[in-house]
Amino acid sequence: MTKRIVAVPGLGVVPAEHPVLRGDDLGVLRGDGVFETLHVRQGRPWLLDEHLDRMARSARALDLGLPPRHELEELVTTACAAWPEAEEGALRLVCTRGPEDGGPPTVYATVAAVPDHLRRSRRDGVAVVTATLGFAAGARRDAPWLLGGAKSLSYAVNMASLRWARRRGADEVLWTSADGYALEGPTSSLVWLDGTVLCTVPPEATGVLAGTTARWLLDHAGDLGFTAEERMVTPSQLRSAAGVWFTSSVRGCAAVRELDGVALPPSPHTAAIQDLLGYPL
Amino acid sequence: MTKRIVAVPGLGVVPAEHPVLRGDDLGVLRGDGVFETLHVRQGRPWLLDEHLDRMARSARALDLGLPPRHELEELVTTACAAWPEAEEGALRLVCTRGPEDGGPPTVYATVAAVPDHLRRSRRDGVAVVTATLGFAAGARRDAPWLLGGAKSLSYAVNMASLRWARRRGADEVLWTSADGYALEGPTSSLVWLDGTVLCTVPPEATGVLAGTTARWLLDHAGDLGFTAEERMVTPSQLRSAAGVWFTSSVRGCAAVRELDGVALPPSPHTAAIQDLLGYPL
Repeated sequence: MTKRIVAVPGLGVVPAEHPVLRGDDLGVLRGDGVFETLHVRQGRPWLLDEHLDRMARSARALDLGLPPRHELEELVTTACAAWPEAEEGALRLVCTRGPEDGGPPTVYATVAAVPDHLRRSRRDGVAVVTATLGFAAGARRDAPWLLGGAKSLSYAVNMASLRWARRRGADEVLWTSADGYALEGPTSSLVWLDGTVLCTVPPEATGVLAGTTARWLLDHAGDLGFTAEERMVTPSQLRSAAGVWFTSSVRGCAAVRELDGVALPPSPHTAAIQDLLGYPL
Repeated sequence: MTKRIVAVPGLGVVPAEHPVLRGDDLGVLRGDGVFETLHVRQGRPWLLDEHLDRMARSARALDLGLPPRHELEELVTTACAAWPEAEEGALRLVCTRGPEDGGPPTVYATVAAVPDHLRRSRRDGVAVVTATLGFAAGARRDAPWLLGGAKSLSYAVNMASLRWARRRGADEVLWTSADGYALEGPTSSLVWLDGTVLCTVPPEATGVLAGTTARWLLDHAGDLGFTAEERMVTPSQLRSAAGVWFTSSVRGCAAVRELDGVALPPSPHTAAIQDLLGYPL
């Protein structure tokens, strides 16, 4: 397996061991920055435009100045060129607010192998437990300081939620709202099939992250013979869906095979969705 | 004014410009780590034991292995020794989960000058606006994955809340719960005086950070002729308090002189509290 690489503007590709961040970088002191994770396939980033669009939206939510778009594109190209074409990769594009006492944003990209557990989940599906995020589904809509929909570097709660799920023997978390709706996973979007309608949770109304993979899938629902809609849903409604999936840029698509300890029936549509998305199984 | 210094175990003191973190450090990729901020006075860290105790609690909440306590103490000593005794300083002690693909935690300390706006707030007080955190005051108590009470590096919402307040012409935010209670500021504890009872918000019941400065102040309430209690309070109840303050390790104590655009009467007790805390005015 190829070792992780890091690409820094002006420096090019450096070994991952090479330190690139100052101790007073607000990206680490405050988790104050934005990032995107992209799938690298055949040496190219998948859905780069969509990811750069979302990064720009995240940066606006954080009042963060990004470098010009062509510089981010060049950085991604440099990083992908250092990754073997035959191997899929997970690329992270990071932009922090830079040093606390002032200075330019810190920007870099890193490519690493797709983690084994994510590759496996494409075939084996995931066992999911629900966990509340504590607030009502609409709470973030009118509270921009809560950064709903922004992909910031502050993922400590996301990581703690996943650790909590794994201690309970599950693979993943489905965050729920205090008023009982299913929202998203800590690093995944929720997608489900209701009859012939392929659905995901509305990002605008709820502050969930607008998933690039989920969006692409819904935009191509016609290829599968489905229509597409953003909808609210409860965990109990998911039990009668014709399929429930977790999607993300690195994972692709994994069937939810178990929800809160109860098996969901395997969906006959998982194979067609995965074929459409084109991630290696 | 002295320039920021950074101290790294095994390396000693390095210039702030010297990169100390890898690009794949989970402290930046995920805001996954813990920190403490201490006041440095006369060349020594104030309330070091209390801060190291809290850091240990934060690390437990994040399932994070800290270096042995004596190593953290030595690191703080090294950093303080490089800071001029005559100048107060703000020391940050940082511990991240280290590289994503595995490896030891990343640990360092940095000392910088106390920011001007925090020094000024000791004399001038702060204008505060309320902003909801979106969840009920008790929501984090039974949801450990929400990391209530843990001082993680994931402060993007804290920073966004402060930027939002400043755009509205205020200095600070008082976070409130969805059920109407006052909780804390993004980097400060709330302290108020009800008659002769010096109060702060109960950390256990609400998931607010247990403020070291607020705790020290309540523990010394008798020196001011007061008793001390942890209590729930609403913003409207604060209007009739005999004093309302924001406390933090670097700021010390600042009177809340305005709440949501309405002036609070100056408290006759502010001077005595500041004298007791011993921060330069």
